Amino acid sequence: MVVGGDAAGMSAASQARRMKGPDDLEIIAFERGHFSSFSACGIPYWVGGDVSDRDQLIARSPEEHRERGIDLRMRTEVTELDVAGGRVRSRDLESGAEAWTSYDKLVIATGARPVRPPLPGIDAPGVHGVQTLDDGQALIDTLNRTEGRRAVVIGAGYIGVEMAEALINRGYEVTVVNRGREPMSTLDPDMGRLVHDAMEGLGITMVNDAEVTKILTGEEGRVRAVVTQDTEYPADVVVLGIGVRPETALAEAAGLPLGEHGGLLTDLAMRVRGHENIWAGGDCVEVLDLVSGRERHIALGTHANKHGQVIGSNVGGGYATFPGVVGTAVSKVCALEIARTGLREKDAHRAGLRFETVTIESTSRAGYYPNAAPMTVKMLAELRTGRLLGVQIVGREGAGKRVDIAAVALTTGMTVEQMTALDLGYAPPFSPVWDPILVAARKAVTAVRKTTH
Amino acid sequence: MVVGGDAAGMSAASQARRMKGPDDLEIIAFERGHFSSFSACGIPYWVGGDVSDRDQLIARSPEEHRERGIDLRMRTEVTELDVAGGRVRSRDLESGAEAWTSYDKLVIATGARPVRPPLPGIDAPGVHGVQTLDDGQALIDTLNRTEGRRAVVIGAGYIGVEMAEALINRGYEVTVVNRGREPMSTLDPDMGRLVHDAMEGLGITMVNDAEVTKILTGEEGRVRAVVTQDTEYPADVVVLGIGVRPETALAEAAGLPLGEHGGLLTDLAMRVRGHENIWAGGDCVEVLDLVSGRERHIALGTHANKHGQVIGSNVGGGYATFPGVVGTAVSKVCALEIARTGLREKDAHRAGLRFETVTIESTSRAGYYPNAAPMTVKMLAELRTGRLLGVQIVGREGAGKRVDIAAVALTTGMTVEQMTALDLGYAPPFSPVWDPILVAARKAVTAVRKTTH
Repeated sequence: MVVGGDAAGMSAASQARRMKGPDDLEIIAFERGHFSSFSACGIPYWVGGDVSDRDQLIARSPEEHRERGIDLRMRTEVTELDVAGGRVRSRDLESGAEAWTSYDKLVIATGARPVRPPLPGIDAPGVHGVQTLDDGQALIDTLNRTEGRRAVVIGAGYIGVEMAEALINRGYEVTVVNRGREPMSTLDPDMGRLVHDAMEGLGITMVNDAEVTKILTGEEGRVRAVVTQDTEYPADVVVLGIGVRPETALAEAAGLPLGEHGGLLTDLAMRVRGHENIWAGGDCVEVLDLVSGRERHIALGTHANKHGQVIGSNVGGGYATFPGVVGTAVSKVCALEIARTGLREKDAHRAGLRFETVTIESTSRAGYYPNAAPMTVKMLAELRTGRLLGVQIVGREGAGKRVDIAAVALTTGMTVEQMTALDLGYAPPFSPVWDPILVAARKAVTAVRKTTH
Repeated sequence: MVVGGDAAGMSAASQARRMKGPDDLEIIAFERGHFSSFSACGIPYWVGGDVSDRDQLIARSPEEHRERGIDLRMRTEVTELDVAGGRVRSRDLESGAEAWTSYDKLVIATGARPVRPPLPGIDAPGVHGVQTLDDGQALIDTLNRTEGRRAVVIGAGYIGVEMAEALINRGYEVTVVNRGREPMSTLDPDMGRLVHDAMEGLGITMVNDAEVTKILTGEEGRVRAVVTQDTEYPADVVVLGIGVRPETALAEAAGLPLGEHGGLLTDLAMRVRGHENIWAGGDCVEVLDLVSGRERHIALGTHANKHGQVIGSNVGGGYATFPGVVGTAVSKVCALEIARTGLREKDAHRAGLRFETVTIESTSRAGYYPNAAPMTVKMLAELRTGRLLGVQIVGREGAGKRVDIAAVALTTGMTVEQMTALDLGYAPPFSPVWDPILVAARKAVTAVRKTTH
């Protein structure tokens, strides 16, 4: 039995079905929404017009799942987990009918819910989240019928900056209101500043250190402005991109173990700790950060799919594990590419690590090659061991996915000295003769060596 | 004393100078050509017009080296190494004057020479190599004054395909005549076939299994056609891209150790084996392939720069090593990107390895994202251990540099099973939710598992 019909849940169901046919394994999945297996990460590009059709974001429809022998019950919300009794209570959201259903094995994939602070006016028409396809459609409908061209995005993380791009692409005047010191708090502030400057260069008004206190409404109760501690920003539409939290109310009520970030805690096979027949994956769990050795909460489709794969294999009688993450993420705002992996300075401090940081400027291609675009790479390396701890990249075309080099190096515990010898792809259209990652590694080697420790 | 003033030699000289000032270390470098520290890899893009000016390909001029305290003697050819006597004989190519000069430490960086088969007509006007800046200038001069628009490229390796692009960009009708079964013999033939088809799609005539027997000349002795065992191809200009061999005649005459590919053999500190005070690096040495455990010859600027860095550190009294390569290479022909790392099937056989191969089709971005471009990934994994052995990629924008993920995985000896859990950067503009490398790794896991061994 699967609770939640999106990436993690339906990947688990599909993988379990691949391993065992309908005669050996019955699979029931509950989904409270209208859609299954959709790409939430794609919503900004649908809103922005890069993706023309909602259905392109749906990897597999409920009908397709059913054809594969999965009893997927849409618009059916699970309202209680009875772990001791091995059953769940669900409600059909159309009819209101409730029922208890028994399980032998349970997969919890309830996802995440967007942070929605209890601000005056936050529920006004014209204020939109972008978590679900329904959210995306509602926002697009608002954009299509709004005459004003002023948009305010609250939050400057991945969703915030991607929505800023989407709104710019639709011709809006965009203001991004951000509580942090710089946008992209998943980067160190010095790298976030580069994002700030580049976004301003795109004509986006960036406001940092801003606490939103309320949302003002005007005629017909529609949103009119976003008010912060300092001033107010006129708005014809407001998009919330404040982040998400694990959706674990059901699990918590059932007494399942939650971590410090509110996510379910699992073992390496994605089994909920202490529960032999319950698995959990996707945005509702915490994952092990392989660099810091601590749990984190990261809502990202690529992890959810991997979790589902692992859970499905185990539920289906096979064996698979999810060893953990290194915290890789990549995003873009128009031509600006933003990437990170591993620890930021504050993560490393928190983990008790001592380290050096270096920052270098290079280009994505050989300097003499057309469209060689500048990129900045920041690298953290541990003192004494010289182990790579993290990389942050801000640049243009070809910059972002270079973070994968560092992601593999982090996974395998490479030192920056070892990284300087990496045999990376070189040709003038692809890289300078020293790839920017190698340039940063060389500088990091020198920095670690110079430090007395 | 440095013999050869290009990437490896001048990197060594520069790094040694950084470590020791002119009072502690005298540095003399001999270069027989007109240029120092230039990017041979950039020549196709200069010929094709992407790079407008030859000087952009020069990383550092002789004057700049001299300002940094390196006595760089241009147009001076070393004609003999007297290893027992610790001296070299050189000839000033302008004056013809010869001299012996003593050294305490010697760096051999004599590079590679292009293969130039002794075919009738190969020295005719209109037949060009593209090894040096002088070669590039001569070819550009020929192109500028040739009225005919038919070009034949002999050889379909990196230089051949890059030159095909350059000539297409200049409006030529291009024929690539290739001795092998498919172009890009650094790939397996099934992947080379994809390159073949894509190049034909660009309007390039691709001829495989073709042995050039002679080059015909016409009026004023200029090239007129390239003749193979089967037919003849009219040509107003011919470019040779047949590959290079280590330039080790001097070293061989001096009794220094050469490997089976004709390159100098060094230890991990890039010291010539058995010679305490002689180092060698760049295109004239063989390098250890970390996957097969055997020596290879790879002429590539990025290795030459690393060698120079290591040699300069050691000569300057420090300590550095070059652990070896995994054989990463990336190239492009117009929008087609071609990359490889590790072993091809025949390399793996030769190394005594048993393995499975898988090939997958994916896209560089999420399928629904604009310009999601198809890419093909082939992966080799060892039986029993499941260790990654090699990856080959043919695709469009964003395909090529993904090979770096595999390069790091190879360097650290990852298994394909471990690779399936890699935390690679995901967002719709950058990758499908399963990066193509992960898709290939998953398929490779299944293939290795299924095999009885």
